[in-house]
Amino acid sequence: MSGPLWVQAGRSDRMNPSIIREILKLTELPGVLSLAGGLPSPDSFPIEQMREASERVLAEAPREALQYAASEGFAPLREWVAARRTAAGHPVGPDEVLITSGSQQGLDLVAKVLIDAGTRVGVETPTYLGALQAFGPFEPELVSLDGDDDGPAPDAFAAARARFAYLLPNFQNPTGREMPDGRRDAVVAAAAAAGTPIVEDDPYGEIWFDEAPPPSLAARWPEGVLYLGSFSKVLAPGFRLGYLVAPRELYPKLLQAKQAADLHTPGFNQRVVYEVVKDGFLDRHVPTIRERYRTQRDAMASALERHLPAGTSWRAPHGGMFFWVRLPEGFDAMALLPRAVAAGVAYVPGAAFYAGDPDPRTLRLSFVTLSAADIEVGVDRLGRVIADGA
Amino acid sequence: MSGPLWVQAGRSDRMNPSIIREILKLTELPGVLSLAGGLPSPDSFPIEQMREASERVLAEAPREALQYAASEGFAPLREWVAARRTAAGHPVGPDEVLITSGSQQGLDLVAKVLIDAGTRVGVETPTYLGALQAFGPFEPELVSLDGDDDGPAPDAFAAARARFAYLLPNFQNPTGREMPDGRRDAVVAAAAAAGTPIVEDDPYGEIWFDEAPPPSLAARWPEGVLYLGSFSKVLAPGFRLGYLVAPRELYPKLLQAKQAADLHTPGFNQRVVYEVVKDGFLDRHVPTIRERYRTQRDAMASALERHLPAGTSWRAPHGGMFFWVRLPEGFDAMALLPRAVAAGVAYVPGAAFYAGDPDPRTLRLSFVTLSAADIEVGVDRLGRVIADGA
Repeated sequence: MSGPLWVQAGRSDRMNPSIIREILKLTELPGVLSLAGGLPSPDSFPIEQMREASERVLAEAPREALQYAASEGFAPLREWVAARRTAAGHPVGPDEVLITSGSQQGLDLVAKVLIDAGTRVGVETPTYLGALQAFGPFEPELVSLDGDDDGPAPDAFAAARARFAYLLPNFQNPTGREMPDGRRDAVVAAAAAAGTPIVEDDPYGEIWFDEAPPPSLAARWPEGVLYLGSFSKVLAPGFRLGYLVAPRELYPKLLQAKQAADLHTPGFNQRVVYEVVKDGFLDRHVPTIRERYRTQRDAMASALERHLPAGTSWRAPHGGMFFWVRLPEGFDAMALLPRAVAAGVAYVPGAAFYAGDPDPRTLRLSFVTLSAADIEVGVDRLGRVIADGA
Repeated sequence: MSGPLWVQAGRSDRMNPSIIREILKLTELPGVLSLAGGLPSPDSFPIEQMREASERVLAEAPREALQYAASEGFAPLREWVAARRTAAGHPVGPDEVLITSGSQQGLDLVAKVLIDAGTRVGVETPTYLGALQAFGPFEPELVSLDGDDDGPAPDAFAAARARFAYLLPNFQNPTGREMPDGRRDAVVAAAAAAGTPIVEDDPYGEIWFDEAPPPSLAARWPEGVLYLGSFSKVLAPGFRLGYLVAPRELYPKLLQAKQAADLHTPGFNQRVVYEVVKDGFLDRHVPTIRERYRTQRDAMASALERHLPAGTSWRAPHGGMFFWVRLPEGFDAMALLPRAVAAGVAYVPGAAFYAGDPDPRTLRLSFVTLSAADIEVGVDRLGRVIADGA
């Protein structure tokens, strides 16, 4: 017998340790204030409501909640999602809704159903790292769509010749940027003209601070947009509950991929979340999250203003969880990180988020995990490290 | 623009509606007694323990249970799994344990890491349908390993030239067969000689009725066997909790595949199950499941004896959930199904479980969902349908 006992699939070369994972390990060192992770503040979790709902589900429907269940998801929760999307201007029926194990699973199912080896997939520059990780094993050719502070450029779609484009119009991870109403229309028109459907990822759409974002891309082009949503940012991430809304021609294959992936999302979790949200709880709860994060966003904006040296740039986001910072000429955020950690502050170098050539001067700062006071201290430390030079 | 808007990956041709799903829909017709599904009896769910554990987790560690968590799984649960596997003769450390969203997800991760298009994968004849569904989208060439009532034949391994073999030694779904101790040794020796590592799927190992099965394949060849386990049959399936134990060379890639698939299995679910099992609860609870299913197995064995006409054959299983029945010469279980449903009983035609040429005379009967009295009625109906002729 020659060669290794376990022969791995070619795609496993595309599966590598997440740089963010490695960085998060650094941030567990004592004394390091982490602006790296995107962990929602646990102070925002509706613990009492989750507790009451858990008790109710295990009292009223324990046998159903603990049994195997439908791969599509819990019917009342699918109806709730359909009603909420419809109210947001995107009219859909429950039979277009598939409950997923977090919206990360939505990305995996999309990749399985849409990506062959070598398939061209358009992504923003930069884009969400978790999508790069979900798509990577299916060996696409990722095409970076050029853009600006308003999102991808409409004329990028024709040139990209992508099978689909993956877009995050609301307070994008990592840049925090938001696509304005006019750009949304232009992007949808350009994508439709190019025959390029869109996968719209929207984990942060409800987490706006100043005004609600414009209607989704899916509302503008229902048959050409597959929409991914999540309960992670509006309730709590640990229940791993998300959903996708799929055009009818794709739904059956996504459902089969879901069934093969994990049979179904835990029925207990779906029922508990349904109990929590069914009577309008989110309309009372989400404003408290907005208020909390708005305060922290403001704290970070003012700390950046005070502590970052000239030549450093950023723009305050209108929602979501992140500031995107660009260091002065000559800096490399990856190279700077060990010194920052030594000084007691961590961030994510922007290079992790690019499908193509990265801008080495960029980095991502989260304002949702730490308190305003800790944000002030962390940004002060970061400012000193930058002031010490590249 | 020509062609469809949404272009699907080639692998989506391999993703088709599960025949079992379609059959389960039939069985929801009023008056049909279903011997088709493999749903554990809800009477076996430890509802009170799950309720107490849920309350404890949400009282003692709500912020941790509802937050993002490690992709590897909840550390105390991984330690518990490692200790339990070690006690079962397969010494492993917690760092070899990966918590999955049901063992179905283990199959998906295995497929992602090990299967290229055209990869030869050895499977039993017949084998678990869920594995065929998980592997299919990755476009393997499935090789049916010939065998007998004791499992696959050792001399099948060299001829198969498979990258790995997928085996279910304990009370296999669908046949209920169990691999005896001597066959396990012979299979491991033959697989090792052929350089064919093994993926061992063991959802039913604890559900034995007469005596505990021999040590696992993983216990005999730790570096050559990837082991999949599940809490679905010993606690409840609705929490979607399973695990895999992987050789160290494979663990990092499986972990990355897990992270890309759904970030992590819900922390709440892992903590609740850990609270339930940590103090030896399974050692008290699993015997009650064995006793319940033994009674139902006996009821089905005696009903088959009484009601099935001459020429029909079966063997009573020593554990698990299923009888495998072979109809008389000239019958086709798929063709017979509509008549059976019309007579008020449903089963799964065996053809669904074959990677290669099916034996059309076979069918699978579950004895775990219905009561002994309903099993008696259902088998009586089945016997009359068979007696009416092919």
